[in-house]
Amino acid sequence: MISVLIVGKGKVGMHLYKAFLGIDAINVTLISSRTLGKIPKTDITIIAVSDDAIAQVSSKIHNALVVHTSGSVAMSDLKNPNRKGVFYMLQTFSEDKLVDFNKVPFCLEAEDKNDLALLERLAQYLGNKIYSISSEQRKTLHVAAVFVNNFTNHLYKIGQDICKQNKVPFEILYPLIEETSGKIQKLSPEKAQTGPAIRNDTTTIKNHLNLLDKNQQEIYKMLTASIQKNNN
Amino acid sequence: MISVLIVGKGKVGMHLYKAFLGIDAINVTLISSRTLGKIPKTDITIIAVSDDAIAQVSSKIHNALVVHTSGSVAMSDLKNPNRKGVFYMLQTFSEDKLVDFNKVPFCLEAEDKNDLALLERLAQYLGNKIYSISSEQRKTLHVAAVFVNNFTNHLYKIGQDICKQNKVPFEILYPLIEETSGKIQKLSPEKAQTGPAIRNDTTTIKNHLNLLDKNQQEIYKMLTASIQKNNN
Repeated sequence: MISVLIVGKGKVGMHLYKAFLGIDAINVTLISSRTLGKIPKTDITIIAVSDDAIAQVSSKIHNALVVHTSGSVAMSDLKNPNRKGVFYMLQTFSEDKLVDFNKVPFCLEAEDKNDLALLERLAQYLGNKIYSISSEQRKTLHVAAVFVNNFTNHLYKIGQDICKQNKVPFEILYPLIEETSGKIQKLSPEKAQTGPAIRNDTTTIKNHLNLLDKNQQEIYKMLTASIQKNNN
Repeated sequence: MISVLIVGKGKVGMHLYKAFLGIDAINVTLISSRTLGKIPKTDITIIAVSDDAIAQVSSKIHNALVVHTSGSVAMSDLKNPNRKGVFYMLQTFSEDKLVDFNKVPFCLEAEDKNDLALLERLAQYLGNKIYSISSEQRKTLHVAAVFVNNFTNHLYKIGQDICKQNKVPFEILYPLIEETSGKIQKLSPEKAQTGPAIRNDTTTIKNHLNLLDKNQQEIYKMLTASIQKNNN
């Protein structure tokens, strides 16, 4: 039996709590970070709060092993007096969508070898993609994730805006989006690159710019230049 | 029986040819655009050549119905003397990867109603996502496709570069990429947006910029500003 305390009732905390509830070998408790009065003693305490609250919340927790779930906060930013670690899930969570933990990479870190093994055991109850990742590596993954997730999603938003403005159903683009994202698992993004930028098709580029608003034009120009720079 | 001539031995021409070969009700011939001497008479002639060669190649073809496969060329740019149309497949094709035509949206256009019906019949032999799309709408789709495919793929490339530079396996990001692209079919990209830009998390943004090279920084700043602009 592993006893787990989750601090924080945001998306990450809630999804973890629900998942652990279904596992017999785990005894899980969930509390809000605003009610830190009575804290049960547990093997692992998972702080799932916003980045800038991690130091303060952790300073109040005297349990044996305290970990946070952030991609961008160093392990050493935990201010609990005892052992420290990180339990970072590199995935995007939605409130109203069930998480398939088999598609969640667990990026784990601990000061102590035995703690790392314990975090691995905990992660194995949920999924199978488990990595030992240092604070430095995690920073790298987090910024790379901003490009492939946050910024990519924004490009989808722009694609949808363009379709809306011209009354074309955005759903026609779903299969292309699916294929583009699936392709890179077989073909590196460098080799998968197609389109007017890499072909240096200036006529098409000019025609496209004429269809865009100012903000869209700036992004189009910058990313076109970056594609061309990368391939010279 | 529908007789089809494909002109052009590039990726699109080759994939279409292979697919039609497997269909009994279609009699298909493939020729290169450089050997236009003897052209068989067919019900449909599909010109699958580069955008800037469409006018010239089509001008030499006197068959009944001539269509091109381009997303960015108007139907009226065909210079054949007879009937015109468009058979545009909004998908990305790789040389060494089989195409699943059930995931290919066929965007069809023709001057003549009966021709449009004939193109629809042809597309139905291959797939089931069939749309009647005007030249204006097709231009819109094509520029939107550049954002969701070409530019997105470039963001994957940058993500991979960042990982390589810091010796972290890029594959850790595959599940996130898959989730991000799948999510928009259930949640609009506007609602799916997460990350430091939309949270206006200036500390994380500053830390991220410190990890990037100059070109990556410029893209990061521009897309961050665009996300913030879109949500005000």
